[in-house]
Amino acid sequence: MRSDIEIAQACEMKHIKDIAAVAGVDEDYLEYYGKYKAKIDLKLLADREGRPDGKLVLVTAINPTPAGEGKTTTTVGLADGMRRLGKNTVVALREPSLGPVFGVKGGAAGGGYAQVVPMEDINLHFTGDFHAIGAANNLLAAMLDNHIQQGNALDIDVKHITWKRCVDMNDRQLRNVIDGLGGRMQGVPREDGFDITVASEIMAVLCLSNGLMDLKARLGRMVVAYTRSGAPVTAHDLKAEGAMAALLKDAIKPNLVQTLEGTPAFIHGGPFANIAHGCNSVMATRVAMKMGDYAITEAGFGADLGAEKFLDIKCRLAGLTPSAVVVVATVRALKHHGGVTKAELGSENLEALEKGLPNLLRHVENITTVYGLPCVVAINRFPTDTEAELRLVEDKCKALGVNVALSEVWAKGGEGGMALAREVIRLCEEPNHFSFAYDLEGSIEDKLAAIVKKVYHGDGVVLTPAAKKQAAELTALGFGGLPICMAKTQYSFSDDQTLLGAPEGFTVTVRNLKVSAGAGFLVALTGDIMTMPGLPKVPAAEKVDVDENGRISGLF
Amino acid sequence: MRSDIEIAQACEMKHIKDIAAVAGVDEDYLEYYGKYKAKIDLKLLADREGRPDGKLVLVTAINPTPAGEGKTTTTVGLADGMRRLGKNTVVALREPSLGPVFGVKGGAAGGGYAQVVPMEDINLHFTGDFHAIGAANNLLAAMLDNHIQQGNALDIDVKHITWKRCVDMNDRQLRNVIDGLGGRMQGVPREDGFDITVASEIMAVLCLSNGLMDLKARLGRMVVAYTRSGAPVTAHDLKAEGAMAALLKDAIKPNLVQTLEGTPAFIHGGPFANIAHGCNSVMATRVAMKMGDYAITEAGFGADLGAEKFLDIKCRLAGLTPSAVVVVATVRALKHHGGVTKAELGSENLEALEKGLPNLLRHVENITTVYGLPCVVAINRFPTDTEAELRLVEDKCKALGVNVALSEVWAKGGEGGMALAREVIRLCEEPNHFSFAYDLEGSIEDKLAAIVKKVYHGDGVVLTPAAKKQAAELTALGFGGLPICMAKTQYSFSDDQTLLGAPEGFTVTVRNLKVSAGAGFLVALTGDIMTMPGLPKVPAAEKVDVDENGRISGLF
Repeated sequence: MRSDIEIAQACEMKHIKDIAAVAGVDEDYLEYYGKYKAKIDLKLLADREGRPDGKLVLVTAINPTPAGEGKTTTTVGLADGMRRLGKNTVVALREPSLGPVFGVKGGAAGGGYAQVVPMEDINLHFTGDFHAIGAANNLLAAMLDNHIQQGNALDIDVKHITWKRCVDMNDRQLRNVIDGLGGRMQGVPREDGFDITVASEIMAVLCLSNGLMDLKARLGRMVVAYTRSGAPVTAHDLKAEGAMAALLKDAIKPNLVQTLEGTPAFIHGGPFANIAHGCNSVMATRVAMKMGDYAITEAGFGADLGAEKFLDIKCRLAGLTPSAVVVVATVRALKHHGGVTKAELGSENLEALEKGLPNLLRHVENITTVYGLPCVVAINRFPTDTEAELRLVEDKCKALGVNVALSEVWAKGGEGGMALAREVIRLCEEPNHFSFAYDLEGSIEDKLAAIVKKVYHGDGVVLTPAAKKQAAELTALGFGGLPICMAKTQYSFSDDQTLLGAPEGFTVTVRNLKVSAGAGFLVALTGDIMTMPGLPKVPAAEKVDVDENGRISGLF
Repeated sequence: MRSDIEIAQACEMKHIKDIAAVAGVDEDYLEYYGKYKAKIDLKLLADREGRPDGKLVLVTAINPTPAGEGKTTTTVGLADGMRRLGKNTVVALREPSLGPVFGVKGGAAGGGYAQVVPMEDINLHFTGDFHAIGAANNLLAAMLDNHIQQGNALDIDVKHITWKRCVDMNDRQLRNVIDGLGGRMQGVPREDGFDITVASEIMAVLCLSNGLMDLKARLGRMVVAYTRSGAPVTAHDLKAEGAMAALLKDAIKPNLVQTLEGTPAFIHGGPFANIAHGCNSVMATRVAMKMGDYAITEAGFGADLGAEKFLDIKCRLAGLTPSAVVVVATVRALKHHGGVTKAELGSENLEALEKGLPNLLRHVENITTVYGLPCVVAINRFPTDTEAELRLVEDKCKALGVNVALSEVWAKGGEGGMALAREVIRLCEEPNHFSFAYDLEGSIEDKLAAIVKKVYHGDGVVLTPAAKKQAAELTALGFGGLPICMAKTQYSFSDDQTLLGAPEGFTVTVRNLKVSAGAGFLVALTGDIMTMPGLPKVPAAEKVDVDENGRISGLF
């Protein structure tokens, strides 16, 4: 069996101008990065203003398990399947982060015969977007500390600085640091820390921006610290947003690549799916909808976090209405939700499978009843799945009136995605009653309660005394009307990662509330969220190599 | 008078394939980064193996002063002047660092009518080389600390780690830090610090590498720490060189851009001119020589540091022989060497000018007698220079048999560089007796003494007891045969920055010796060298902006 990188490197890629031509886009709109990558000029949006938008399809999943779900793989294969059915389809995915590539993961651009290429480039520097975000993030940090060093005219409280530096690397050594040491000419000693670049608010800002001027305005609104009297200090107060926007002027342009089967694919933006909203950029989604008759996109983690944020944050902000939602599940992951340990997932176990199904069904119910959207389950087939197991899932879904399709894109590419594609095309013509899980007008507590009750199916939300105080302060500062970005474990509907399946009778505790004023949401933290990963005992980096022809190996 | 960025933005750039065509290079060799930037495939070197190399011309300068010398401007204008004389000429320059762009400097790609474009891109992310170097640098740091965290099988002494993290930003807050705080799962608490990216040894390695496999081997040789028994620990010991080389596979390819007049220009690599050798990459220089009949390049700081390292390190390592050397001087800078303060440089002062001339003459003498190369002085004209002043420099040079030409490229572009170009073309046909200032076979002390006596014209070198011990240790470790990279003030021939002109009777004290085993030189530090700049009271970043069309302002 060939590895992902072997399959990817065997692909005879087309020149990216020929990929753009698939969707009728002239090469004048392209800014090449080599032959197989291009940034697309945002003027395409204005030039095609009169063209009806393509239909937007979201691919989401059950709660993730160690068994893997294959959401990106399904997204890519579905698009290839739709193209085989003659539909003008464009993919919009998130950019992988460099850090995890060298940690455990090794790469992230789909898998098997449903990948985007050139996968090595996509997994390494790609078109430099993440580096640009890191530079803008660290310029702001340097200007902030320099402001304090040069006299602190804004009266910034050095014990209340919320802006961190970042690197796009899994580097636990930088989680907690004391910097500014070495004497009075070397900065101001203070506690500090680094996040991985994708956790920077600038990543979320870039992904939610509606253009370069909106990006600049959002950058200016970002809160970086508080004064000694408790007033927020913004990037605009530090006169930093112009230089940051200059650093990001190309990063905001979506990156066009191709699937193994030559379907146009945007890969652009990749914010954290917990402290941020976990979706690719609004600009890429909008361009994909102006290029394709169908735009297929994905969201992070399971549907309780990923789809919720995609719908309640991104779609609300950008004025998007999805036409259909795909919920990806695997037999292995459902068995895990039914109580099977990772080691035993390879054996047939119909009882556990049936016990795990409610996790899937609850996500589907949320999509159809809470959000009012047409929905289909994609069973992403693994080699170890038995016919009896696949039939069980299919039969149960059908008995409950849930749309379901087998997806074999990992093994067969677009051909294995045609059954799912047919379902999606059909669903896109069905009635659509899209609505949000909560209104922006309610209090912060109201909004939290709506998410917990309607989406998680819990009894309610509890705010710690600290979080209550923060909610009052944020409301007083005028941030009460923002949508909520939940930071919760992805493994369970609840805030307890051991409650698998479809738990009931729980409450969710919010311990911390903070504002991402540039991105335009409030982050509700239900526990400690790691914003700087570490490397494992044997980092994937040890296996990565490049030969004299520049061919990379060891990504997988 | 128009600013540099206004002049640059008014330029109607040609497509980069048309610039390559100027030197007969087919677009198959180009990897585009938009329309006006391209990386060049290194196979050009093999494909043109039989073609005679173009003549290599070095542009260097007198000891820098606050008045400015205009070395890059002269390099660009000289090349444009040579093209106007019908010569196939290619420029090879260093890449500017992002940090200083946002600090005091505002930009660095020539000036006036002698610039390389697109200047905004060149000054910001360009083709991502520096970001790639930063990522490789920080991957190695993360792998090093992770190795210690995961059990420290190599027995690394946490008090003797020499590898630092880096950011491409002027950020004094990161000069001295304690990281790894927060408990046993969060790394190992230790003293640490950040350098600006250009100070990373990886920058020097990239610039001295002869290809991707040589790059990988050099990366593996870099010393990152010492064991508790004092043995060096390398990047190879950490199994990091493959992943680092993968990150740098594109960064090693030279970047092609154009001058305002359409002359092909490589801008590639920019190591520090003190702790490293301060020249653009060997690959760019070699490609420029395979493309042009003349390749014009520059070196950092004044000739005592820049030309010395260019000749004794880069040319020795790469087997290059320059055909001519240009020493740039300005009337203002010479008056400063003659004792005039910065505020009074605008007034005619023939006495001070004559008093400052020995600085220039000594550099010229070094080039012709120590290194045996043809040399010409370029007087880079400033608007405040009087005719009498210009005539004095010219007359004095001519009286001493020193070649001299007036350069007016800042105001007139290539037309203002034609007089200098004629001199350079003539000199390239003169006898060439190139030799080095020292042989590699001597002891570290011998080599240091040779540089101080022959190049600086001092009485000799003094090693502190610590430096003597380091010299013995480095020799015992097998590093004694490497060339020396001097880290000395750029303002004086001596190690005392207040000794302007052509000082005599001084000794140079070496306080610290360390090895850059990947780059392949020993660094001799004569004082504290700042490897992480800070931002000034009003950072240049505050003025940088971008408009709705993506047009950048505030770089200058």
